[in-house]
Amino acid sequence: MKVFRTTGAGGPEVLSLDERSDLTPGPAELLVRVRATALNRADLLQLKGQYAPPPDASPDVPGLEYAGEVLAVGPRVRRFHPGDRVMGLVGGGAWAEQLTVHEREALPMPEGMDFTDAAALPEAYLTAFDALVLQGGMRLGETVLVHAVASGVGSAAALLCRAMGVRVVGTGRNAPKLARTREWGVERTVLVDGTPPRFAEAVREASGGRGADLALDLVGGDYVPETLEALAPQGRALLVGLVAGNKTQVNLGTILMKRLHITGTVLRSRPLEEKIALTQAAERHLLPLFRSGALRPVIDAVWPIKDIRNALMRMASNETVGKVVLRWS
Amino acid sequence: MKVFRTTGAGGPEVLSLDERSDLTPGPAELLVRVRATALNRADLLQLKGQYAPPPDASPDVPGLEYAGEVLAVGPRVRRFHPGDRVMGLVGGGAWAEQLTVHEREALPMPEGMDFTDAAALPEAYLTAFDALVLQGGMRLGETVLVHAVASGVGSAAALLCRAMGVRVVGTGRNAPKLARTREWGVERTVLVDGTPPRFAEAVREASGGRGADLALDLVGGDYVPETLEALAPQGRALLVGLVAGNKTQVNLGTILMKRLHITGTVLRSRPLEEKIALTQAAERHLLPLFRSGALRPVIDAVWPIKDIRNALMRMASNETVGKVVLRWS
Repeated sequence: MKVFRTTGAGGPEVLSLDERSDLTPGPAELLVRVRATALNRADLLQLKGQYAPPPDASPDVPGLEYAGEVLAVGPRVRRFHPGDRVMGLVGGGAWAEQLTVHEREALPMPEGMDFTDAAALPEAYLTAFDALVLQGGMRLGETVLVHAVASGVGSAAALLCRAMGVRVVGTGRNAPKLARTREWGVERTVLVDGTPPRFAEAVREASGGRGADLALDLVGGDYVPETLEALAPQGRALLVGLVAGNKTQVNLGTILMKRLHITGTVLRSRPLEEKIALTQAAERHLLPLFRSGALRPVIDAVWPIKDIRNALMRMASNETVGKVVLRWS
Repeated sequence: MKVFRTTGAGGPEVLSLDERSDLTPGPAELLVRVRATALNRADLLQLKGQYAPPPDASPDVPGLEYAGEVLAVGPRVRRFHPGDRVMGLVGGGAWAEQLTVHEREALPMPEGMDFTDAAALPEAYLTAFDALVLQGGMRLGETVLVHAVASGVGSAAALLCRAMGVRVVGTGRNAPKLARTREWGVERTVLVDGTPPRFAEAVREASGGRGADLALDLVGGDYVPETLEALAPQGRALLVGLVAGNKTQVNLGTILMKRLHITGTVLRSRPLEEKIALTQAAERHLLPLFRSGALRPVIDAVWPIKDIRNALMRMASNETVGKVVLRWS
């Protein structure tokens, strides 16, 4: 099988197309022929050598999500059969023609969806669903602040909020990209153009003075203290990304007096049982919404995987809206 | 009735003994003859004009907890009768001979306990119980980090942990005070004598390298970043006090990668329904442990209330272990 592997630490140029032996599924695993995969900002960190894959993932083949078909199954597999179309998250190894995955970590692809659409779903929607719903306890009628709302996770979060009767205030640093977010039901956008970023007042204004009940912070850095100012009493902040840096000064008085909840989260390093639990919750609660059309992939572009280096540079440019997808052949 | 009221902003000298009209209970309220009350660090802030009482509390009579006997009841009161001995938290007004309180915010005093012991319980134990158990989800076999473990809340937290099969690592800045905490089951103490404070390594060592599952941070300031370093993966930090200041720099990478939960909390400004819910949970879950002897008041000294100014200075000196109690006559 073909794989894209890292040959050192650096930018997209460290990726090399290579041949590897075919894989064999473990007793409870699927062997998947990957038809499409997608890019994530974490990939750029991994290429730079700043985000080591977890011990159970490929050390040198990146790639966090996939869509494809089942080639073979281990003897204890019960839910899937060869030929089934599946998609999902992996700790690494998705930039390859084959991968193996525990059958309970795989999701059946929505009927009628093609591989390139399906490959755009797992990371964006599982991250948004896990953070907003499972950890954030998002409820009908709330106001949710979503940073980088035109990104892959941001767009998924916006569509999920709309499906759940939740109002979204979205931030971004690019006016044309922000304009696109109206399509996904984003009610109010805030263009952030200064340093430190300022959006708390706009969020309070958009929520009748109350502030956001929940915030999905994909940016980190000096967005965090301003996010805390933008929250309502007993508001919850989910910290999911650190594009803007990993140190900041916070006002503890704000956290105490408003009785805020701040939760840091990552998906990739979780143990198997938690990854399975998230997958199964997503199958139960998210997949029906793709079938009904309430949720859909938001795709910037689909590239042939041979152009992965250019696709990575395009993602790094911050010009993308939604997901960058790669297809095999 | 006699009250101690504030005559301006400053230190204990702004308190003045005054006469006020007797109070009348509302329809669902108790009129309580206060026999004893206790001091809290928040009182010092309130005297300085830095911690305004909530709108439903006395604007100029401080005092957050009491023990006494019911003098009269409103027509809708069902649970208590004149002569019953009660204790509890109030948003203010406890430094007086009388106060009124909703009957569902009052706790029956444990049988056989005297007023000065009972007055030492409400703030310390309800704060510790609410933070560790109701919000922190403290469970059997965990390791809990308690800062300022010789304080009123710290000692209550330590005894509550012991009663629940939880190991305590306690910090403090005074070696003789820390030595006293062994009486309450504190397994490991860490003397914090530098700036910034260092205790994370000692906490990890005391927990087999894992870190604390839960932290009760009564100190704030630059204790917070070190508290986050001291937590285990998925650890929870409850921020309850800010004696050391309300700004600090935090490492967001630590929060994300360890998937930490940080919750700020205060009791005083909560709405009535939440105060009632806490009181009722405490009656159900905490009071039996006072009857059995597993929990007990930890009292530094009992002063006649006429000496309240000296008692406040004693508390401000940081020499106290446990609660400073004041009794009427």
